[in-house]
Amino acid sequence: MTQMPPAHPFDDDALHEECGVFGVGGVADAANFVALGLHALQHRGQEAGGIVSHDAEHGFNSARRFGYVRDNFTKQSLMDTLPGPLAIGHVRYSTSGSKGNTQIRDVQPFFGEFSAGGAAIAHNGNIVNANALRRELIERGSIFQSNSDSECIIHLMARSLQRRVPERMQDALRRVEGAFSIVAMTRTKLIGVRDPLGVRPLVLGRLGEGWVLSSETCALDIIGAEFVREVEPGEMVIVENDVLTSHRPFAPRKPRFCVFEHVYFSRPDSILGGRSVYETRRQIGVELAREAPVEADLVCPVPDSGTPAAIGFSQESGIPYAMGIIRNQYMGRTFIEPTEQIRNMGVRLKLNVNRALIRGKRVVLVDDSVVRGTTSIKIREMILDAGAAEVHFRIASPPTAWPCFYGVDTPDRDKLLAASMSEAEMRDHLGVDSLRFISLDGLYRAVGEAGGRDAESPQYCDACFSGDYPIEPSDRIEQGFELKTAAE
Amino acid sequence: MTQMPPAHPFDDDALHEECGVFGVGGVADAANFVALGLHALQHRGQEAGGIVSHDAEHGFNSARRFGYVRDNFTKQSLMDTLPGPLAIGHVRYSTSGSKGNTQIRDVQPFFGEFSAGGAAIAHNGNIVNANALRRELIERGSIFQSNSDSECIIHLMARSLQRRVPERMQDALRRVEGAFSIVAMTRTKLIGVRDPLGVRPLVLGRLGEGWVLSSETCALDIIGAEFVREVEPGEMVIVENDVLTSHRPFAPRKPRFCVFEHVYFSRPDSILGGRSVYETRRQIGVELAREAPVEADLVCPVPDSGTPAAIGFSQESGIPYAMGIIRNQYMGRTFIEPTEQIRNMGVRLKLNVNRALIRGKRVVLVDDSVVRGTTSIKIREMILDAGAAEVHFRIASPPTAWPCFYGVDTPDRDKLLAASMSEAEMRDHLGVDSLRFISLDGLYRAVGEAGGRDAESPQYCDACFSGDYPIEPSDRIEQGFELKTAAE
Amino acid sequence: MTQMPPAHPFDDDALHEECGVFGVGGVADAANFVALGLHALQHRGQEAGGIVSHDAEHGFNSARRFGYVRDNFTKQSLMDTLPGPLAIGHVRYSTSGSKGNTQIRDVQPFFGEFSAGGAAIAHNGNIVNANALRRELIERGSIFQSNSDSECIIHLMARSLQRRVPERMQDALRRVEGAFSIVAMTRTKLIGVRDPLGVRPLVLGRLGEGWVLSSETCALDIIGAEFVREVEPGEMVIVENDVLTSHRPFAPRKPRFCVFEHVYFSRPDSILGGRSVYETRRQIGVELAREAPVEADLVCPVPDSGTPAAIGFSQESGIPYAMGIIRNQYMGRTFIEPTEQIRNMGVRLKLNVNRALIRGKRVVLVDDSVVRGTTSIKIREMILDAGAAEVHFRIASPPTAWPCFYGVDTPDRDKLLAASMSEAEMRDHLGVDSLRFISLDGLYRAVGEAGGRDAESPQYCDACFSGDYPIEPSDRIEQGFELKTAAE
Amino acid sequence: MTQMPPAHPFDDDALHEECGVFGVGGVADAANFVALGLHALQHRGQEAGGIVSHDAEHGFNSARRFGYVRDNFTKQSLMDTLPGPLAIGHVRYSTSGSKGNTQIRDVQPFFGEFSAGGAAIAHNGNIVNANALRRELIERGSIFQSNSDSECIIHLMARSLQRRVPERMQDALRRVEGAFSIVAMTRTKLIGVRDPLGVRPLVLGRLGEGWVLSSETCALDIIGAEFVREVEPGEMVIVENDVLTSHRPFAPRKPRFCVFEHVYFSRPDSILGGRSVYETRRQIGVELAREAPVEADLVCPVPDSGTPAAIGFSQESGIPYAMGIIRNQYMGRTFIEPTEQIRNMGVRLKLNVNRALIRGKRVVLVDDSVVRGTTSIKIREMILDAGAAEVHFRIASPPTAWPCFYGVDTPDRDKLLAASMSEAEMRDHLGVDSLRFISLDGLYRAVGEAGGRDAESPQYCDACFSGDYPIEPSDRIEQGFELKTAAE
Repeated sequence: MTQMPPAHPFDDDALHEECGVFGVGGVADAANFVALGLHALQHRGQEAGGIVSHDAEHGFNSARRFGYVRDNFTKQSLMDTLPGPLAIGHVRYSTSGSKGNTQIRDVQPFFGEFSAGGAAIAHNGNIVNANALRRELIERGSIFQSNSDSECIIHLMARSLQRRVPERMQDALRRVEGAFSIVAMTRTKLIGVRDPLGVRPLVLGRLGEGWVLSSETCALDIIGAEFVREVEPGEMVIVENDVLTSHRPFAPRKPRFCVFEHVYFSRPDSILGGRSVYETRRQIGVELAREAPVEADLVCPVPDSGTPAAIGFSQESGIPYAMGIIRNQYMGRTFIEPTEQIRNMGVRLKLNVNRALIRGKRVVLVDDSVVRGTTSIKIREMILDAGAAEVHFRIASPPTAWPCFYGVDTPDRDKLLAASMSEAEMRDHLGVDSLRFISLDGLYRAVGEAGGRDAESPQYCDACFSGDYPIEPSDRIEQGFELKTAAE
Repeated sequence: MTQMPPAHPFDDDALHEECGVFGVGGVADAANFVALGLHALQHRGQEAGGIVSHDAEHGFNSARRFGYVRDNFTKQSLMDTLPGPLAIGHVRYSTSGSKGNTQIRDVQPFFGEFSAGGAAIAHNGNIVNANALRRELIERGSIFQSNSDSECIIHLMARSLQRRVPERMQDALRRVEGAFSIVAMTRTKLIGVRDPLGVRPLVLGRLGEGWVLSSETCALDIIGAEFVREVEPGEMVIVENDVLTSHRPFAPRKPRFCVFEHVYFSRPDSILGGRSVYETRRQIGVELAREAPVEADLVCPVPDSGTPAAIGFSQESGIPYAMGIIRNQYMGRTFIEPTEQIRNMGVRLKLNVNRALIRGKRVVLVDDSVVRGTTSIKIREMILDAGAAEVHFRIASPPTAWPCFYGVDTPDRDKLLAASMSEAEMRDHLGVDSLRFISLDGLYRAVGEAGGRDAESPQYCDACFSGDYPIEPSDRIEQGFELKTAAE
Repeated sequence: MTQMPPAHPFDDDALHEECGVFGVGGVADAANFVALGLHALQHRGQEAGGIVSHDAEHGFNSARRFGYVRDNFTKQSLMDTLPGPLAIGHVRYSTSGSKGNTQIRDVQPFFGEFSAGGAAIAHNGNIVNANALRRELIERGSIFQSNSDSECIIHLMARSLQRRVPERMQDALRRVEGAFSIVAMTRTKLIGVRDPLGVRPLVLGRLGEGWVLSSETCALDIIGAEFVREVEPGEMVIVENDVLTSHRPFAPRKPRFCVFEHVYFSRPDSILGGRSVYETRRQIGVELAREAPVEADLVCPVPDSGTPAAIGFSQESGIPYAMGIIRNQYMGRTFIEPTEQIRNMGVRLKLNVNRALIRGKRVVLVDDSVVRGTTSIKIREMILDAGAAEVHFRIASPPTAWPCFYGVDTPDRDKLLAASMSEAEMRDHLGVDSLRFISLDGLYRAVGEAGGRDAESPQYCDACFSGDYPIEPSDRIEQGFELKTAAE
Repeated sequence: MTQMPPAHPFDDDALHEECGVFGVGGVADAANFVALGLHALQHRGQEAGGIVSHDAEHGFNSARRFGYVRDNFTKQSLMDTLPGPLAIGHVRYSTSGSKGNTQIRDVQPFFGEFSAGGAAIAHNGNIVNANALRRELIERGSIFQSNSDSECIIHLMARSLQRRVPERMQDALRRVEGAFSIVAMTRTKLIGVRDPLGVRPLVLGRLGEGWVLSSETCALDIIGAEFVREVEPGEMVIVENDVLTSHRPFAPRKPRFCVFEHVYFSRPDSILGGRSVYETRRQIGVELAREAPVEADLVCPVPDSGTPAAIGFSQESGIPYAMGIIRNQYMGRTFIEPTEQIRNMGVRLKLNVNRALIRGKRVVLVDDSVVRGTTSIKIREMILDAGAAEVHFRIASPPTAWPCFYGVDTPDRDKLLAASMSEAEMRDHLGVDSLRFISLDGLYRAVGEAGGRDAESPQYCDACFSGDYPIEPSDRIEQGFELKTAAE
């Protein structure tokens, strides 16, 4: 089995968006644009990527590779095998089903040949009843190629009694519970769908006469496409012959977009829900400075994701902003067959303290989140080794106390520091002079909800902070996961 | 011939430090530490790297590879071939002699077997009389393995009538004109040398009982070594059996350290000449804001090298600092067999404008230097496309009007924008609302010379700005290069 | 798509066995023995190979690779991923469905997860109603992973209403028309099946307490297994806990073993139907010398497959045997990205005439078969260029006038020289002094049928010579293939 | 260090020709022809190969690779880097200096830049005073790139006071003691030289207007070149502008061509000294049958090198020739990271006994030589396991009792079975019913010396059989090797 090389020793102390999707229809050599789009979405999934294209002469063609988009899908010889005006692509981190053990057959897009013709789909999100669906499908004779939950969708489509692919997809998605933003294609159609809650993002762009679907707007920019609008929660868009039609296959529900996309997953140069992600993060820093002020000499981001909030914190507090921690630009994600020493280096391979700057200073470190806390401890050690007088952590998200079941790779609940410790206990555990998280209301204010979180009917999915799951995670409950009780 | 993959389309619009050197003596598995040190020095040379080690059982062993240190010298199977307590290493960009056409045999360290035993050397810098030396050596029967100028040194050593390697090296270096910081080794000795002017950096560190030589202090940090002091201009240090001795083989001269190391080449977390590189760069921004103020809404760095100066500019001017340009973290340096589209993408593969932030704003862009100006034009286009109201460039170095012959890869003089245009002409050429470079005196103030540049006897090598070459570039003059005339 | 490298320019002038299968049960590290068995069966399929193993701890594991067994399945790191006491494997040439365009997903064994547990199968042969089955299965919602006809079997198994895998396999195989020798496995069982006519070979061996299934006996020899008997036509054997049981799921029919296995496909050191393949081939040479004598100076084989018949011809005729054509031992099967010159070299890359030996001689060349005749022409040219006085071709099989639909890769009928030319016309076309094929009766005598071929009820499948197809090739007939008419 | 993969477990029981050389001048894209020639000479060196070419635009270009010629030098992308009308190449087994530890820098041709221009040389043979020369050259300041003895030649050339390359080469070769056939080139000349004894072969061919130099004639055949004549012992030929001139730089001596080239090293389709190698070997079998007759049922070759002698033995003795041992065609030379099982398989991976043929038979096995005897023992075991009644070994060369110092890789003397055992002792050691080697006189008769060996002044170099070394192996004597004493 071709297996994924081992991840970084310190990689397990962050949350990972599992996927990015991108599709282009009605443009010559569509796969080239998909490759660029996926490159811009690489932060959503660094493990592997795939592209499927279609042209009249060669039919469907597919390439799936481990590694970065730029190392695979920039080569002429590979891209020549992906001709045609219609193409979709996918980058992935890893599925919930097979962490650290992905095989190439798990890499999307998935393709199926139906009696009505073939279709390929790329899925961002997670199906919470996938185990049950898989059991049922195997019982009825379906053979799964992969360990990916997303493959259920294509089998449900294959078994639909509808004749046309869009109707088959609607049939299939009505059986599926969970969060999904899907980009799909038939021989002639580009299709985009978003689940009724709209948990994961999906945007629509225009490239000349053609159309583009993308997880984020930053990937429209790289190919020079114009941002048109978001695909709406519960909407299915179908592009055929340069004409876009909109469909509503699901019962309407109040949207619950993932608030963590604003905090961490999306790129700062993307626009989500009409707001600049960068500006939202800077505003989180402003809110943090108001909620949790501190006397200090420097505000330093933990690179790179803490930077916008650190800028905001500095601007609101008046404490000078400085690059106290320098990131090595030449770090990739993984090592093949690393030496013992490399295995033990951890975060020092990636970050170094700016010793001359830090010595004797009271330092505010702004980070995006605390997951297991292991990286935070190493950073605190490095900062104190360099002679800092005080270390104050300010975290640009509320405590992450619950796992995500909607497409983000989270540790089990017992590995989450915030699941078992109070803020004060975490401060002592991390060994810092102070530790403060932004409040849930502060976060909602930063994303533009001036009145904060509507506790009765929250405006976002914030299950990872609140334990309030808008879609019941049925497979996990079957496996023993316990929902938050009224008492908690 | 194994050839280097083609460089980025936009790579030719920057200056490149050609090399970083690192050596460790008196520590078990020294090569592992060298690998980490080279990883921390990767910014000084991304094309290729090599390590030579020695132990009593296996003698000298060597590995040289194209590509990043982290992709080669982290593997157990490779590092197992480099045993022993003594090792040196080198990362390189490319030699002046063979741009874009490097072969593995050009990758250092170079090794030679002498009648007195073998020696390996790694060289940072450039020999300005290499062509003449090479001609002479070939005439006398030496056979060159590489196209590298540095190989002259090892042939001169081989032909020395001295018996011991350090004396052979002194013999050789007295014939050599140019800038050099050298790390070398014999079976039992670790040797460091710096040319009399001390143009290129070299520092000394302690790791337990062992000793470390490194181009920069940031590479001491990664292995936990303690910074002891700089190797002094004109000094040769020899470490044997954990004892360091200092020698002065050259006639003393007033040092002329490269001022561009402060501006751009060195990492911001290194300490040069007792000063934090980050702090120097921030101070350049402060000086720039004083010298060339402007009314604007935002100060944005051109990532990543413009960041510290942008922070300083913002702090001095009071104009808010913002990340107006976002860098894609997943860009490497090169593409193998790229598609036409990739070839044409240029800077957009690496940078994207934060459109929501920039729209309608007057933006100060702070960049480290202007070489050809091609990247600056593309960035200005991207910023204006995103709707900026005004674009003001502030450059953290004086106009680069002269090529460097001391170990930095510079275009020929006629390709340097500042060689043929005034600041005002460059402003028009780049199409920006204003363009200002820091003055040479301002730069000197930022590096700590309160009185500015001493025109009679400059404190630094600033030939790239001033045309004042402290070492006559004899090979180039022979090839037709014209020194600055009194009239200029 | 990972695609197969291009075949040899001259590869299209030979018939290719499409597959070899091998399975081991009840032996520690079974996959290692499978690897050796596949190496011994490499002549039956050089394009790709795969192994599936099972052990209690890791479940099913699989590795599939392009290239020779010896280049992939000899590595410790790969074999470590295939633990357990039960393993099956497959080598393949290419499927009828996708000549020259195989993808890794087409490489067997195929694996399917059923409600009753998983199973893997490796198939040698061809399903003549695969298109119809595939259409039906897709219509009912099955999703095919590959272009291989063999995949139908696993989908039919998945849809069977039987609970246990052997019964599911019987269900599936009763729907299948064609020739098949199958080696399969569940978590605990090793299964072998042969179609009712027994067209393709399959033998049973014993290795200590364990059991072995193999396409040929030569692969038992390499692992030191004892040859027990052939799996009989129409028999299914099941090994579980070291106990073998025999089953008869099909209606009995008179066997029709492939006579070409004796002539060409099987290795000379294998035993087929109780006869040494080498001895049969030598006997073909004897028969040829009787049927088609000629006055000549030397009998030379076309290496390597013509060798045994040439020895027999020499012994019967008294004409000295000699190596007139020398084979280059360092030829592999394929070239990646070959130069124009390599593409045009053809057979000269592989064969060279022993010029000093051939000059002025009357030469009998013994070859195994004539397919398109293109190689024969090149060999005749080489022999005459070397100065031979006369060239007489003697062919160790009857004229190949009909394609095989039972697991051998044959050109379309209009490409077969013998389909449109008489023996005399072929002689003129090839430009040789004489050309004679062994008669069909002579061939039958050589394989031990003293009375020759029983025209009413032939003892073997000889469709490629006679056009008498024992199983109607229904897919091909649907595609326009015309069976032999009574008049032909 | 890039190291050679480990050799076969059974590879150490054969003698290996260390090199083949090939050169082409005056033909467009000469390197393509060199690649084909090296492919035909692959049997002379399978470890690595290299080609140097020259054209006016690009100067000298070079590619050196581990592995087979066909896997490297058939690719368009590599061959495109080797343009021009002049090219030379080399295949190698390994140098005497670095068995099993070759690095790419040891792979020839070697290139040197002289004051008179550059030259590349490829060397077949061995320099017996290389250690002494190397010491002297290093003492005088030469730096060696490789561990290869052949590199001395290029350093001696570099230090020559002559101006032109051919004269420099003559200067150098007059200092060299040993056996050499050299193909070299300058920018405009193709040069061939053979040592005064002519120990190693070198032939001259014509390809259109151009000229070809090759170790053997079989490599002329593959490119369609016409065999002109052998380069004579002590001759230097220089081709420039399609004109060949002949020079005699050495004092004339009576030639001593290597007799083992006839027995084993050269390909059977080559012509050596005006005789077909195949015919010579067949004649050895005839002589053997006369010298050492035996009653038996079958004569079988040990494939493949024993085949011609076995044919001769059969023809002379009247015992039928048969393929009793079958060779697996898919064996390469080496395994990378082999499993324990593969390591232990030995000869069974390559050879299998034709059991049905051998059972109960008295078998004469004809092999080319016995070196250590380890393979012979394994073959005897396989044959007896298969049920042979008797096993008689007949060896087509005299006992190999002395190492070769002239370019053949031989074990040290104490590893050679014949160095310490009589024929009868060897028979008992190998456990066979009889063992006979051809006599030295019989061998001489087979190569055409009707009167056998001239003991006073032998016609060939037969040091490996006789201990009579025509060139004193001075380095080895210095290392302790003892020449045959008068008493032996």
